[in-house]
Parts: sequence; structure tokens; C-alpha cells
Amino acid sequence: MALKVYGHVITPAVQRVMVYLAEKELEYKYIPVNIFAGDHKKQPYLSLNPFGLVPAFKDGDVTLFESRAIIRYIEETYKGKTHLTLDDPKKMGAVYTWMETEALHFDPAAMKLVFQLCTTQVLGIPMNEALVAENQGKLNSVLDVYEDRLSKSRYLGADSFTMADLFHLPGINSLMSTKLRPMFEDRPHVNAWVNDILARPSWAEIIALKKSQS
Amino acid sequence: MALKVYGHVITPAVQRVMVYLAEKELEYKYIPVNIFAGDHKKQPYLSLNPFGLVPAFKDGDVTLFESRAIIRYIEETYKGKTHLTLDDPKKMGAVYTWMETEALHFDPAAMKLVFQLCTTQVLGIPMNEALVAENQGKLNSVLDVYEDRLSKSRYLGADSFTMADLFHLPGINSLMSTKLRPMFEDRPHVNAWVNDILARPSWAEIIALKKSQS
Repeated sequence: MALKVYGHVITPAVQRVMVYLAEKELEYKYIPVNIFAGDHKKQPYLSLNPFGLVPAFKDGDVTLFESRAIIRYIEETYKGKTHLTLDDPKKMGAVYTWMETEALHFDPAAMKLVFQLCTTQVLGIPMNEALVAENQGKLNSVLDVYEDRLSKSRYLGADSFTMADLFHLPGINSLMSTKLRPMFEDRPHVNAWVNDILARPSWAEIIALKKSQS
Repeated sequence: MALKVYGHVITPAVQRVMVYLAEKELEYKYIPVNIFAGDHKKQPYLSLNPFGLVPAFKDGDVTLFESRAIIRYIEETYKGKTHLTLDDPKKMGAVYTWMETEALHFDPAAMKLVFQLCTTQVLGIPMNEALVAENQGKLNSVLDVYEDRLSKSRYLGADSFTMADLFHLPGINSLMSTKLRPMFEDRPHVNAWVNDILARPSWAEIIALKKSQS
């Protein structure tokens, strides 16, 4: 088996690559990295990802990092079962726009909120209330834009499920277990979209894997 | 002429799209948005970019935002003069990785530093020294990784100039006029790379356009 994903399934960025591979029904080897012992900040892992972040990825002699880059590499290299991009470049532009929106607007706010609302409890460190308020405001603005977009388009990037939607799964799933769940539920189009994408069998696979590893 | 870029050439994200179009030698119409009067935060501009950020882009009935998404759309839709991606998907993976690195690691630190070191002076507001120190630390770590990468590869994504390099031009150009210039100059491989990419004729075109508009 050629494809190898290094990291830990507890982390959203590793989940992003894994749910993508589950959608494509591509086989791969999951190589756990003990992030609790800080192994991702040491060699030999740093030779796979010099930023000391998970995931890293290998396909033969190709070594990559950054979850969204790994996904785009696989999308162009292997066919797989599901087509998560569009053949029409005119329609693909919107998919790119909403992929960037996830990476640059949704995810930075979502990840700071998940850290403050969940990870601080696990680590037993104080929550930064100001940071929560700041990022809740940012997420609110992002979800207002999403509500409008999803009132006109069944999915974010197109009328079909694409990478733009898939990229959101780990962050949304994490936030849905926090007090911020109503931010999604109170917006009817966002709520329908969240229920739709979280119900995908690919995501159920990742949740099951996560439970088996914790 | 079909392609329209909305925004202001003073902003890095608009420069990113424009230097790309200059590299491709594609014709387009630049439609200035008066960001000083806040026109990007009002209708009709918000119908082009609901986040109220520049640039926005139109190609006939295709409307897009996010500079890197606009660039990828054009790359797949129009041939243009220069090829800024690679035909070999195995080699394109690294280009994607370093494109993501720019967007998620380099640019967030660079833009916060440009705002604090340059924009606060223009606006006559106080500089946040703690934010400068925090992001200088982040940029330092990123440039350490770049120095290592550029000691093994002539450009970030490949041995030839690609979108991964081009994406950095606006941020690097802005930082080179600040006290942080030595962060680039003191790293020999980063320094050679910066000098190389800033010397591209496409970038000289953007600098000239910026001067003519200020």
C-alpha cells in the first residue's frame, strides 16, 4: 500500500485527510504519531513536516504536508470512487472560492474556539474569554455569509457535495459538541447543510476510528 | 474584455491577482474600489464579495473572491503566456504544499506585521508592540523552514518559478520596506530567492501601477 498518513485521528487536520480518503474509498496506511508525547515536534517526524504539525503524508517518494495540499495532490493523482471536484472549470471557480473561505475564514476562528472551549479543559489550563468572544464574533459573520450562500446553492461550492464542504467536517463536528451548537442550528440553511454533510458514511467511519483510538 | 478585477492596487491581495495576470500576459480591466471611503463594506460591492474584502473578480457571469481562488480559476480556464503550475501531478503536490504554507503560515504573520509597522502610521493609531513581537516570532520560524527548503530547491514549490513563489510577492515586497528587511537578507537562500522573484518584470509592472495610483 503506497499512501501513508502520519498523525493522530484526534486532530481535525488528520480527520480532514482521512474523511477525504474514505470518500474516495482509497486504501492507505494510518501511521499514528504520539502527539501527546510531542513526537511531532522532534525528529524523525520533522523531516516529514518541518512545521511540526500533523498530518504528514507519503506516497512512495513524494512527501507532503498541509491537509488541503495532500487532498489536492491525491485528487489529481488517483481517481477513487467519488468525484469531489467539478470537470467544468467555469463552475470550479466557486468551489475554489469556498475552499479558500474555509481555510482562511471559517477554520482559523473554529480552531481557536475548539482549543479554548475543549482543549483547555483537557489540559487543565484557563480559558481565554476574550479570545472566545473575538472568534465567536468572527464565526458569526462567516455563518451569516454561509446562510445566504446556502439559501441559493445546496452545497457551498456547487449544487453537489465537493471538497469545499468536506474541508469543513472536522471543525463543524468539534464545534457541534460545544455551547456554540446553536450558532449552526439557528440558521435554517446552515443547519440543513450541517446535518447533510455530517450524515455522510465517510464521516461515520472517521468518528468510529477516532473512538477506537481514544 | 471579459476579465474584471475589483479592488485597489495598494492592497496585497489585489496585487497578487494582478501580478499573476501580468505573468500570464492576460488582458483584464482593473475596476478601482474606493476602500478609503469604505466602499468595499457597502453594496453594490458586497454582492461581489460578501466578506467586504478586496479583490473580487468577474469573468462574464462567473463572480469570484479570494485572491488565490481567482488565480486558480484563471490558471485552469485560460492558457496565458507562462505556466505557473506543473503538468506532473507527482511534482505538483509540493507546489500545493508550499501554496498552503504561504496562505496559512507566511501570509497571516506577514499581513499582521505590515499592518502594525506600516498601516498604523498612515492611520495615526498606536502600534501594538506585543502583536509585532508575536508575529515576528512566527515569521522567524517560517523563514527558518524556507531557508532549509531553498537550500535544496531553487524555488519553494519546484526548481522552477510557480504559483507558490508568486503568492508571496506582495507580502515580501511590503516587509522589505520595514525594519524586518534583515530577516530576509540574513538568510542566504531566502535572500537569493527574494531578489530573484522581486526582479520579475511582472512585479515591476505592479509597482509601477501602484505608484501611478497613489
